[in-house]
This record gives sequence, structure tokens and C-alpha cells, in this order.
Amino acid sequence: MPSSHLRACVALLALVAVAGLAPAAPPEEVPGADLLPTLQAAARSDPFAFQLLAHLVDEIGPRLAGSPELERAVGWAEETFKGLGLERVWREEVLVPHWQRGVERLEMLAPEHRQLPLLGLGGSVGTAGVEAPVVVVRSFAELGPAVQGKIVLFNVPMERTRPALRGYGEAARYRSEGPSRAAACGAVAALVRSLATTSLATPHTGGTRYAEGVPPIPAAAITVEDAEWIARLVARGVTVRLRLEMGARTLPEVTSHNVLAEIRGCEWPEEIVLVGGHLDSWDVGRGAQDNGAGVVQVMAAMKLFRALPRPPRRTIRAVLFTNEENGLRGGKDYAARHGSELHVAAIETDLGAGRPLAWAAEGQPEALAWLRRIAAPVGLPVQEGGSGADTSPLAAAGVLGVGLRPEDEQYFAVHHTHADTLDKIDPAALAEGTAAVAGLVWLAANAPR
Amino acid sequence: MPSSHLRACVALLALVAVAGLAPAAPPEEVPGADLLPTLQAAARSDPFAFQLLAHLVDEIGPRLAGSPELERAVGWAEETFKGLGLERVWREEVLVPHWQRGVERLEMLAPEHRQLPLLGLGGSVGTAGVEAPVVVVRSFAELGPAVQGKIVLFNVPMERTRPALRGYGEAARYRSEGPSRAAACGAVAALVRSLATTSLATPHTGGTRYAEGVPPIPAAAITVEDAEWIARLVARGVTVRLRLEMGARTLPEVTSHNVLAEIRGCEWPEEIVLVGGHLDSWDVGRGAQDNGAGVVQVMAAMKLFRALPRPPRRTIRAVLFTNEENGLRGGKDYAARHGSELHVAAIETDLGAGRPLAWAAEGQPEALAWLRRIAAPVGLPVQEGGSGADTSPLAAAGVLGVGLRPEDEQYFAVHHTHADTLDKIDPAALAEGTAAVAGLVWLAANAPR
Repeated sequence: MPSSHLRACVALLALVAVAGLAPAAPPEEVPGADLLPTLQAAARSDPFAFQLLAHLVDEIGPRLAGSPELERAVGWAEETFKGLGLERVWREEVLVPHWQRGVERLEMLAPEHRQLPLLGLGGSVGTAGVEAPVVVVRSFAELGPAVQGKIVLFNVPMERTRPALRGYGEAARYRSEGPSRAAACGAVAALVRSLATTSLATPHTGGTRYAEGVPPIPAAAITVEDAEWIARLVARGVTVRLRLEMGARTLPEVTSHNVLAEIRGCEWPEEIVLVGGHLDSWDVGRGAQDNGAGVVQVMAAMKLFRALPRPPRRTIRAVLFTNEENGLRGGKDYAARHGSELHVAAIETDLGAGRPLAWAAEGQPEALAWLRRIAAPVGLPVQEGGSGADTSPLAAAGVLGVGLRPEDEQYFAVHHTHADTLDKIDPAALAEGTAAVAGLVWLAANAPR
Repeated sequence: MPSSHLRACVALLALVAVAGLAPAAPPEEVPGADLLPTLQAAARSDPFAFQLLAHLVDEIGPRLAGSPELERAVGWAEETFKGLGLERVWREEVLVPHWQRGVERLEMLAPEHRQLPLLGLGGSVGTAGVEAPVVVVRSFAELGPAVQGKIVLFNVPMERTRPALRGYGEAARYRSEGPSRAAACGAVAALVRSLATTSLATPHTGGTRYAEGVPPIPAAAITVEDAEWIARLVARGVTVRLRLEMGARTLPEVTSHNVLAEIRGCEWPEEIVLVGGHLDSWDVGRGAQDNGAGVVQVMAAMKLFRALPRPPRRTIRAVLFTNEENGLRGGKDYAARHGSELHVAAIETDLGAGRPLAWAAEGQPEALAWLRRIAAPVGLPVQEGGSGADTSPLAAAGVLGVGLRPEDEQYFAVHHTHADTLDKIDPAALAEGTAAVAGLVWLAANAPR
């Protein structure tokens, strides 16, 4: 605790002692809200978050579980937290999957000879080469004996919704379940149409999950353009023949790390407000929106708290999770290690640096009512349902889970692609997100329940 | 001439004979405007243009000068015109360049080892491999002795303008002149930032021109993302080292063809209203916006004229030019062969299938005044300056040149990329463009001068 915080903490406790157990804030006012203007003005004017992001994205780069880049990011995050003068900064070992992409090629053999851009799905098996005609389906219901020996293309568009997350969620099951559903019908490989709000011949990767008892078949995403083209050709009766080659392989699991940092609460230090994002990314692009933005918002929030004239009443714990993308091992490990501690809220930012629109929250009715009350000064509505992936194991155990919901149209244009790069980040919108997250965390760390 | 047209032509001539030389239209009304509603309603309701485009784009594909695909497109265009029952359909031989891309690789060697997406510029020489540090410039003025032995990156953004064509025109000179300007200062290769309104890790090709007396150095476009990334790294003092390999080569010139079709004017048949677009495309993507859209608008317009109850008074000549992209040989050949004929107007559509906004026109003041008068019923403003590339040799010789100016933001997102595909075409906007072009051509073919 910095000495200014220590002095303020003593003064605050003295005040609480005089007033008995009642909070010092005037009635109707959310405790801690008095410092919200200071906190948020600093969030908006400090270029720190964007500077951190520029380093992480440009100079460390993509950081899939198992990569040296992820562990470089772990070290950088730890050093950065320490550089902020936070009293407690540490890492926790997490065993993570180690999937590697390898060389990938998708060749159209008929009706034309062409190379098609692709991205293998995370977790996919490799193939030295599988060649077959394509069957195009738009739903699981269309799978049947006709796909035996064929390459199945799931040409399921991501519906344009607001938020885009909704359309993503609906279409994403074809990526996660599709390959095994196709394999169960005898398909030799599966292709999915990339999940995208817009496309410029842009393949989007993402994880897939093989079902037990079904042979794992190679699985990759192709561009929206090629999915529609192939679907049109097949609909006109043209036979489309493809050859897929993927060097993907799954190596033995390796040790990665969650990175944690705390500002200890001066009144209820055993009560924790968690603020987190994930440090890992897919192996393509640079992980700017997903989730460099969330990482630096969390780091910048800690810097902002540290600069306030008094400490929080509860402990604020920043957690930068490892391996969200292809395992959620960081989130699971955290819940297993720390689930018995008293978490008042687990607040996550993992939808990029768009302008903040709302909070999504899940929890007990009283917790949600409390959240609505304390969140009011930040000015964003609280919507029920979902929160964040890394905090979902905590939320499943009953912790109030809260996720920032920013404008996400552009996020889902670059999500899991080569185009998830620093230029996609609007520094002002990133700062607005920091202001929102820092604001909510601060209020949650100060308001009595 | 179809028999219905023949009968109508005889009737029209009889009417003109009775009325002396005065047009039959009432005062203030543009002659031919009486059929405009019929013509444009048909343009909007007929799926013909989109159907043609689907075939050209999906089944013939990219069609660079020298490719068998371009000659397949020539044959298809000729057959399609003949299928419309046009009285005169023919092709004219044009000698065109034969540039081939070959295998391309751009490797970052420092500070990271990565493959970067690229597209060699049309006309570039190849290289078995050139490796050097990068110097980033934002203008020709920044070129100097420091680029000696280096790879120069022209990181010049295409400014966001309306129309986007303006920003494109301003930045495009770095693509066309940049390599030779860099070579004159001793650079060993040139990279240009892709010209794009938006990017999802999307390289854009396009032609470059080597200056006389300067060694031709290999030249390629990289993505906006990578150009900005490299520029940021270099600005932070990081040495960026790249290796460029390009299999590009220029083969002996080959014979291609312009495809022409006419509806003969019944009153002033020796006066020609030309309507055109270009049949060739770059060798990436499928040439949907550039310029499949223009090609099918021209073809659909001819079908619409053919279906009207009377023929035009002037001859309407459709010209599908070859080799606009990397030589303009089709446009030049046409002007050389037909420049002595009386062209009343040369109307071109080569900015894609966006909603029509205006006409750009160049010509004598009286011709422009005439155009403004006769174009009024179509409802689009006439702007002075520029018209179209293929018709520019005619315009340079004094012919009134007119170019359709549609909404072009999306056009310049996909222009010269892998993403110039059928899904980018809005059939309704394509049809609006057809209605505008057909409308103006019809009025130009009927209004006295």
C-alpha cells in the first residue's frame, strides 16, 4: 500500500469508527462515487492503456497457449504490474494445451484449380492430404448419408445482429460441433464458413471440439466469399472437389501462467472484486481486440486506482488469464484455486475496444439488484445473461459475473483473424472502456452489500 | 434490326418527314424521354444483368490480359450479344501485354520471423530474392540517399474522401511512380501500402510503371495493417528486415479482343453513342466490381434497347474493352481504329455496382451543355472532369466522354483484391446502375444536338 493510501485508509477507518457501521457517503449516493469523476477523467486522458497495447500487440504479437510469445507476455505483464508499485504481484502456474497450426493448404481441384485461403480450427487434427467432393449444408438437419466420404461445408451465415455477439453465438456451434457431427455421418473433413460481420476474403479461426467416440476429422474455416461461391456452384450442379492439407498437431501440455496483482482493501480486505481479461490470443493477427484491449484496460485500471487519494474498501484483484482461447484453463485454474475466497464480483472485459454500451451480468437476484444500484453512476445499463468466459467458472459457482459489452461490430470483423491488429483500435473508445471498467470496479470495491 | 424496330423506324422517319427536320417530341421534352420509364422499369425488374455477372464472375473468374480466362470471357460476351439478336456483333484483335504473377513471398526476418501477405504490382519484374532493411517514407520528398540498398515502403494512406475515387487518385501515384522514384535513389525493392477504404489484412494489386533509364526494381503492395505496423516499429527505432521473392515475368505480347455489338440508328446511323466497360480484370479475386458489373450493365442495356418498341435514332455501339487494367490497349486500339467515326458520346461504367450518384464528363463546353440538357430526365447531376479509362483516348481526341459515378466506398474496399467477388454486388444497386446507363445512352442516341 502506498503511504498516501495508508494515511487515507487510517482516516477512513477512523471515520467509519465514529459513524458506527454506516458508510460515510450521504444517503442515495453510491459509496465511492465521489471519486468517480477523478478516476474516469484520468482514464480518458491517460495514454497509458494504448501505449501498453502498442507494445503487447506490435512487439510481442500473437500469443497462443504453448507459444514463447505468451510467456513473454506473462513476464511483461508481471513487470508492468510491478512497475505500477502494486503491493502484491504474482503468477500462478497453469497447465495448458499446446496446439500448433503447421502448414495449411486448401486447393480447389474442380471446377478450377485454385488455392483458397483457410485457417485450420484450433484443436483440429492434421492431415497429409484429404481430397473429396464438397457437400454444402446450412444446418445439422441437412447432414445425412450423402456426406459419407465427402468434405462437408457448413455454409451457415453469422446473422447480422446488434450486438453482433448474439449472431456469433448462434453460428459458432457449427464451428465447435460441426466437425464431429459431420464425422458421425462419415465425412472425411469439415469446413466452416468464417464467423464474420464483414469479410474481405478473411478467414477466421476459432476452437473446435471433437465428440467422444467419433473419429476426429480435419477442420478448417474458409472465407465467407469462398463459402458462398462454392455454395452457388454446387447449387448450379457443379461438382466442387477440394484437397485439404493441414500440418496441425497437438503436443504435450505445457506450463503457462495467470498473472495477478492486488490492491488490498482497507476495510474488507478479505472481500475481492476481481477485474480480468485474457492474455493469450489466437496464433494469427496480433490479438489487439481479442484480447489485448481487455488486458490493457485491466492494467490501466490498476494504475488509476493506485493514483486515487484513498484505497478501496475491498481488495481489487486484477487477473490476466492464460489460455482462454483454446482451453479456458486459466479461468478454470483460478476458480479451482481461489473459488473459496469471497468474491463480491468478477468483472471481465473481453469484447474489444469498442465504445461501451452495457454490462452483461449473471448472479443471484440480490447480487444483480446490488449491481444495478452501484453501477448507476457509470451510466451503462445492466443486462441479464452471460458475463465473460474466464469468469464463467466463478459465475457457475454463484459469484456475480459481469462483462463489459462494447459496440462489437468491428470486433467481430477482425476476431480470430490476421486483421486483429493495432490499427483497429480507437484510442478514445479504448479509454472509454477503461473508464467504464475502472469505474464499476471502484464502485464494487467500495459499496456495502 | 428486329422487324418490330424496322416497322417503328419507318413510321418514325415518316413522322419526321411530315414535321420537317424538327424532332417529334414536344418542346422542353428531351427526345426519347417518352420511353425512359419503360426502359428503366425493365432495367430494375430484369435479373438478366445479375445472372450474367454470376456466370462471368463465378464460372469464368479472374481474366487478366494474356490469360485463357480473358479469351473465354471474350467468347462468352460475343455469344451473349448474339443471343440477344443484335444485328451486328463482332470482335477486334488487340495486342496485349502478358504479365504473370508467379509465386510471391514476403518474409519479415527481423524483428520477427513472419510471412506477410502481399500482391506484386502488375508489370513488376520478379526477383529470386532481395533482402534488406526497410526505410519508410510518406512522400516522394522523403526519398534520398538513405534509401540506397534498402527496401522502400511508401506508407501513404489513401485519404477517406467522398467519392473515394478522389483519395484513390491522389495516393495511386505512389503505386505507379513509386518504384522507379525509389530505384532512382538506389532502393533495391519498393513496397506500397495498399490503396483501400478499409482493410482486413487485404493486399490490393494494381499496375506500376517503370521510368526509362532507371533499373526496374521489384514492387509489391502490402496490407494497410502491415504498412502501419512496420512504420510504427521503424519509428520506435526497430530495424525491420524483409526478404521479397517474386516469380513475376513479362512474356511476349498476345492477341486479345475487344467485343463490339451495335443497334443501328434509324435516323442518323453514322452517329455513334458508345457504351462500354472492360472485360479484363486483375488476376486476383473474380473481377465482380472491377469491372464485371460494368460489363453486364452494358450487355443488359443492349437487351433493354432491343426490347423497346422503336430503334434509336443514332447507332448505339456497345464496346467491351480488353486490357484496361495493365495496358489500356483495348481503349487505345478502339480509338485508333474508330476515332474517325462520329462519336456523339462515349459513356463508360467502370466504378462498380454501387448506387448511381452522378456522371463525370469531359468535352467541349457545347457538348457538356448538351449532356446536361439531355441527361436531366435520368436525374443524376453532371460533374465536370474525368470520364473513364477506356474512353479516355476518344475523349482526348475531343469526343464527349461520360463516366457513371456510383457510391464507391465499397468498390475501393475490394478493388484489385481477392475479395472482389459476387457477394459484394447488391443486385438492386447493380440494376439502378443499368437503369442510369441505359437511360442516358438512350437519350444520347435520340436527342438532336
